Amino acid sequence: MPNKKSPAPTKKDRTVHIYRTAAEIMCRKGYEATSMNDIAEAVGLTKAGIYHYISGKEKLLFAIMSYAMDMVDEDVIGPAQRVADPEERLRTIVERHSNRILEVGGDTTILLEEMYALTPAHRRIVRARKRAYFDLLRHTLEDLAKQGKLAAIDPSVATFNILGTITFLSRWYREDGRLTAEEVLWHVREFAMNAVLRPASC
Amino acid sequence: MPNKKSPAPTKKDRTVHIYRTAAEIMCRKGYEATSMNDIAEAVGLTKAGIYHYISGKEKLLFAIMSYAMDMVDEDVIGPAQRVADPEERLRTIVERHSNRILEVGGDTTILLEEMYALTPAHRRIVRARKRAYFDLLRHTLEDLAKQGKLAAIDPSVATFNILGTITFLSRWYREDGRLTAEEVLWHVREFAMNAVLRPASC
Repeated sequence: MPNKKSPAPTKKDRTVHIYRTAAEIMCRKGYEATSMNDIAEAVGLTKAGIYHYISGKEKLLFAIMSYAMDMVDEDVIGPAQRVADPEERLRTIVERHSNRILEVGGDTTILLEEMYALTPAHRRIVRARKRAYFDLLRHTLEDLAKQGKLAAIDPSVATFNILGTITFLSRWYREDGRLTAEEVLWHVREFAMNAVLRPASC
Repeated sequence: MPNKKSPAPTKKDRTVHIYRTAAEIMCRKGYEATSMNDIAEAVGLTKAGIYHYISGKEKLLFAIMSYAMDMVDEDVIGPAQRVADPEERLRTIVERHSNRILEVGGDTTILLEEMYALTPAHRRIVRARKRAYFDLLRHTLEDLAKQGKLAAIDPSVATFNILGTITFLSRWYREDGRLTAEEVLWHVREFAMNAVLRPASC
């Protein structure tokens, strides 16, 4: 029952709740082994009820991936594009993307790997969005190189390495771990910045 | 038909061929969507024939993961344990693990994430083996710290970051890409070493 003091959840709130719950179940049981029934049950809807929100499992997976990429657009790509200095832009990308995984959990990040389960048309769309993000990061490293600040390291390989470092957070970070989210964020950022910046000359 | 000049494949050779083929199909179609029939067909065995090698799909997944961890033991952990100097040991781990993924492809590395599909007993075994590898890497970073060579970075977080960097190779590296395997290896190693080593003081 909705709390009197909170506004009633909108259809968008309910849809996001379905995406997050479905992502959690799909990560725990595997995408193929998860049924629309499992998801309906977990969010307290009938099987007919859930089809009001989403028309099938592949469409749901695509919707979850699109939602995850929307969040990357909004929380990472948009803010980073407004940072002119490439070193600061790189720091913004690493911090904001890592922070998002630490804050909301890694399930949707993990599901972004399940490309095989998409229809070819949906796969092309998700791949193009991942590519746009990759390019932002690679161009940032190329801008650093132009300023003489990039270590002797290939910008494309370094981009993949940074993405591997950040997305792996979704596999290992636990809220009840030894370090706070803020501490983990600090160490991930240091690692990535150390890895690609040329040490200050002396 | 076996080539006269080559020795006939042993049962071990055939088993490894089944593991690699199964890993490739499971990565392409998803573990759950892959049937024992798909695998039998791909390796040219009847359904009865494949059960001579392996008694079911979960056992096959566990066998593939165990095989992947055997290779890590043999190619990475064993040689690294024989290197006394921690900086050289770290370089050995990064090079040998990356090289293995570049040489044999990333399918078995990707399958090592599918922990949810294992029985609890199998999951415990694989988790303990991953943990032993994690500990080797973390202790290596702690040894570097004792020598004053580790940057100001938490050894556990840095260990996860290095593992994320290496294992992500399995998702992006293509043999027909712009860089040779040797070049990719060089850039991955530089990235990881730069990330964790304190810059030489001046």
